[in-house]
Order: sequence, then structure tokens, then C-alpha cells
Amino acid sequence: MKVITADAVPFQPVVTEGAQGAFIKELITDRDGAPTFAMRLFEILPGGNTPLHSHPWEHEVFILSGRGELRGETQMHPFSAGDAVFVPPNETHTFVNTGETPLRLLCMIPVQQSCCR
Amino acid sequence: MKVITADAVPFQPVVTEGAQGAFIKELITDRDGAPTFAMRLFEILPGGNTPLHSHPWEHEVFILSGRGELRGETQMHPFSAGDAVFVPPNETHTFVNTGETPLRLLCMIPVQQSCCR
Repeated sequence: MKVITADAVPFQPVVTEGAQGAFIKELITDRDGAPTFAMRLFEILPGGNTPLHSHPWEHEVFILSGRGELRGETQMHPFSAGDAVFVPPNETHTFVNTGETPLRLLCMIPVQQSCCR
Repeated sequence: MKVITADAVPFQPVVTEGAQGAFIKELITDRDGAPTFAMRLFEILPGGNTPLHSHPWEHEVFILSGRGELRGETQMHPFSAGDAVFVPPNETHTFVNTGETPLRLLCMIPVQQSCCR
């Protein structure tokens, strides 16, 4: 068992094409022995966004602070701190910070996936 | 895709033997189509705790508010808001609220497991 202080883990820029003002830190991954899924923390600056893309794995997200919009091809869902977000496999999506403060969210994915997608 | 407002989901008492002052709400489960893992939110009142137990699946936890201790058979790790916690499969563990305010934490588990363990 282990406790990881998120503030002690540095952010890295999200370099995936289409990302703007988005940063990631990995908190729990398969390198910690996690057998099923990984936990990452994202910060998205005001006006920033994660890439608009889709992939064969799901996202489970919890909004820690700030507010924004989950945008798909035909849907838009506003969210704010305290909301959970489920993006099923193969649905096009982007998280956009529409607020005036940094948007922080936890994002979990299956461990067999690349860390930053 | 969907957004779930955690405040709109009612807490249920954790009825597992050994739990005290612990409540759970499920935010994302296989009933939402989640294929790999589930997201639950726990509240543990001051002095309360989750059961001291072990099981063949892992926990990945993020502390949303409050503070407490992760206790195992031979280890004790204090934690507070902003910490992530990894409990590997088959490690005995309990989460104890040692603070003066409610302890709130997200706890993710593989979907094939029972909701409240």
C-alpha cells in the first residue's frame, strides 16, 4: 500500500496534437503494480482543452476544481467541480476549460493504454 | 458520454461488517456501460472507518477532503486531501477518519466486484 501526494508530482505538458494549455501528472500506474487501471491528474488552463479525439478505451473522470464543457461530435455537457464524467470507448470527446480558473480533473483509464491519451 | 453530479446521488450506509460511520454512493458502474472499473464516493464521519479486510482486487483512491489514516496489518500511512492511495490486491486495509470533519474519498475498483467492498 502507498500514499502519493499529488502536489509532489510534477505536471508535464500534454503534447498530443490538438491539446492546448493542458498538463498531466500520473499518480498511480502499472509501474506501481496497478493491475487494471491508472489514475492521472490533469490541469487545463482557462481557454485550454484536451485533444478532440476518440480511442477504443473509456475515460472515467472526476472534476476536482473549475468548470468546463465535455464536447463530442453532436453533444455538449457542461460540468463543474464535484461532477463525474463517463466517456465510453470510441466516443469522440474533448474537455474544454470555459472558466476563469484552472480546471483540475482526475482521469482514469485501463492500464494497457498509453499514459497521455 | 454523460455527466453525473455527485451531489445528486444519495449516500447509502456501508453495511459490511466492521464499517462504522461510513457511507457510499456509486457514480459510475457497469450499469452505465463502464467496461473495466467503477467509481464510488465514500464519506466517513469523524472517528469512523471502513472495514479492516482484504480481497483479491485493488483499490485506487483519491482523498477529496478531510484527513485520516490507511492502516494495514503492519503499516500505517496518514493521508489528507489531495493524496492518492493505492492498495494492491490481497493487502489488509482500513481507512480511518482521524480528523474533525467528514472524510470524503473517491474509490475505484474493477467492475466485476461487488459495489461496496
